[in-house]
Amino acid sequence: MAKTHTDKAYEAELSQLREQLLEMGGLVEAAIAGSVRAVVERDASLAEQVKVRDRAVNRMEVAIDQACRRILALRQPAASDLRFITTSLKIVTDLERMGDLAVNISERAADLAQAPALRPLHDLVKLAELSQAQLKRALDAFVTGDAGEAEEVLRGDDHLDALYLKIFNELLGLMMEDPRSIRRATSLMFVAKHLERFGDHATNLAEMVIFMVRGTDVRHPKSRADE
Amino acid sequence: MAKTHTDKAYEAELSQLREQLLEMGGLVEAAIAGSVRAVVERDASLAEQVKVRDRAVNRMEVAIDQACRRILALRQPAASDLRFITTSLKIVTDLERMGDLAVNISERAADLAQAPALRPLHDLVKLAELSQAQLKRALDAFVTGDAGEAEEVLRGDDHLDALYLKIFNELLGLMMEDPRSIRRATSLMFVAKHLERFGDHATNLAEMVIFMVRGTDVRHPKSRADE
Repeated sequence: MAKTHTDKAYEAELSQLREQLLEMGGLVEAAIAGSVRAVVERDASLAEQVKVRDRAVNRMEVAIDQACRRILALRQPAASDLRFITTSLKIVTDLERMGDLAVNISERAADLAQAPALRPLHDLVKLAELSQAQLKRALDAFVTGDAGEAEEVLRGDDHLDALYLKIFNELLGLMMEDPRSIRRATSLMFVAKHLERFGDHATNLAEMVIFMVRGTDVRHPKSRADE
Repeated sequence: MAKTHTDKAYEAELSQLREQLLEMGGLVEAAIAGSVRAVVERDASLAEQVKVRDRAVNRMEVAIDQACRRILALRQPAASDLRFITTSLKIVTDLERMGDLAVNISERAADLAQAPALRPLHDLVKLAELSQAQLKRALDAFVTGDAGEAEEVLRGDDHLDALYLKIFNELLGLMMEDPRSIRRATSLMFVAKHLERFGDHATNLAEMVIFMVRGTDVRHPKSRADE
C-alpha cells in the first residue's frame, strides 16, 4: 500500500537520498578541482589520486540507483516525490559521467606532466572554477527545490562557453606559431573541452531541477515553439 | 492498486514505450550517419538538415519521459517491469545526448565545407559505421532483453577506441607536417572524438540492459573488486 507523507521512515529515506546525492556531488567537485590542479601543477601523482577516488563516485552511483528503485518499488511515491525520485535516477548518471570527465582530464595531466610546460594556464583554472561553481549551484537548486537558482545555472553556461572558445582559439594560435607545441596544445584543448562538457552536465542538472519543481520541461523550448 | 501483468492496457503501454524508444533510436542512427556524410561529402545543407531533425529527437525525449512517469504513477510496476521503466528513463537521456553529438558533428561539417578538403576520410566513415552499429545492437538487446547481445556491445567498444586513436594520431601527424592543416585537422579530431563518445553512450546503454535483464550491475566492476 502507498505510504503517506507523514511516514517517518519514508521521509528519512528521501532525506538520506538527498544527502547521498549531495555527497556524491561533493566528491565530483573535488575530482574536477583536483584534475585541473594536476594539469596546472604538472602533478602526475595527484592525477592518479583523482582516478583512484573515482571508484567512490562509481560506488555511490550504484547505491543511489538502488535506493531510488527500492523507494519506487516499496513506497510507490506520487506527485512531487515521484518527480524527485525519477530526477534523482537521471541526475546520478550525470554525476557519474562528470566524475569520468575528471578522470579523462587526469589522464591528460599525466601525459602533460612528462613534457615541458607550455605556458601559464590561468584561463583553464578559471574555466574549472566556473564549471565547479555551476555544479555546486545546480545541486543546491536540486536539494532546496529552487527553480530560480537553477535558472541562474542556465544563464551561467554562456559565460563558460565563451571562455572555452577563448582558450580554444588561443591554443589554435599557439599551434600555428610553433608546431612543437601541437601535441601539448591538443591535450590542453581536450582538457578545456572536458571542462566545457562538465559545465553542460551542470546545465542538464539545472534543467531537470526546473522540471522537477515546476513540472515544466525547459530542456527543448525550440522543439515545441518551432514546430 | 497495482495492475497485474495480464492487464492488456498496461501491456500496450509498455509495448508502446518500447516502440517509441526504438523509433527514437532510429532517428539518432540516421542523425549520426547523416552528420558524418555531411563531413565527408562537404555538404553544409545536409548538416543543416541533421540539426533541424534533432528537434524530433528532443520531442521524443520529453514524450518518453512523460510516458515513463505516467506508468510509474498509475501502474506502480514491480520487479522486471520496474527495471524496464527506470532503465528507459535513463536510456532516453543517452539517446538525446547522442542526437546532440550528431548536431555537434554537423556544426563541424558546416565549417569544414567552407575550407579545402583535407584528405580522404575512410577511417572516419568506418568509425561512424561502428558507432552506429553499436547503438543498433544495444537497442536490439534492450528490446529483446538479450544480455548476451549487450555484452557483444561492451566487447565492440575496444575496436572503436582503437580506430579513434589511429585517426587521432594520423591527424596529429598531419598537423605537424603541414601547419596549414591545423584548423581543419583540429575540427576532424573533434568529429572523431564525438563519434568515440557516441560509442561510449552505446556502451552505457548496453551496461544498463545487462542490469535490467540480470539485475547485476556491470558498470563498475573495479569499484567492488578492488576495494
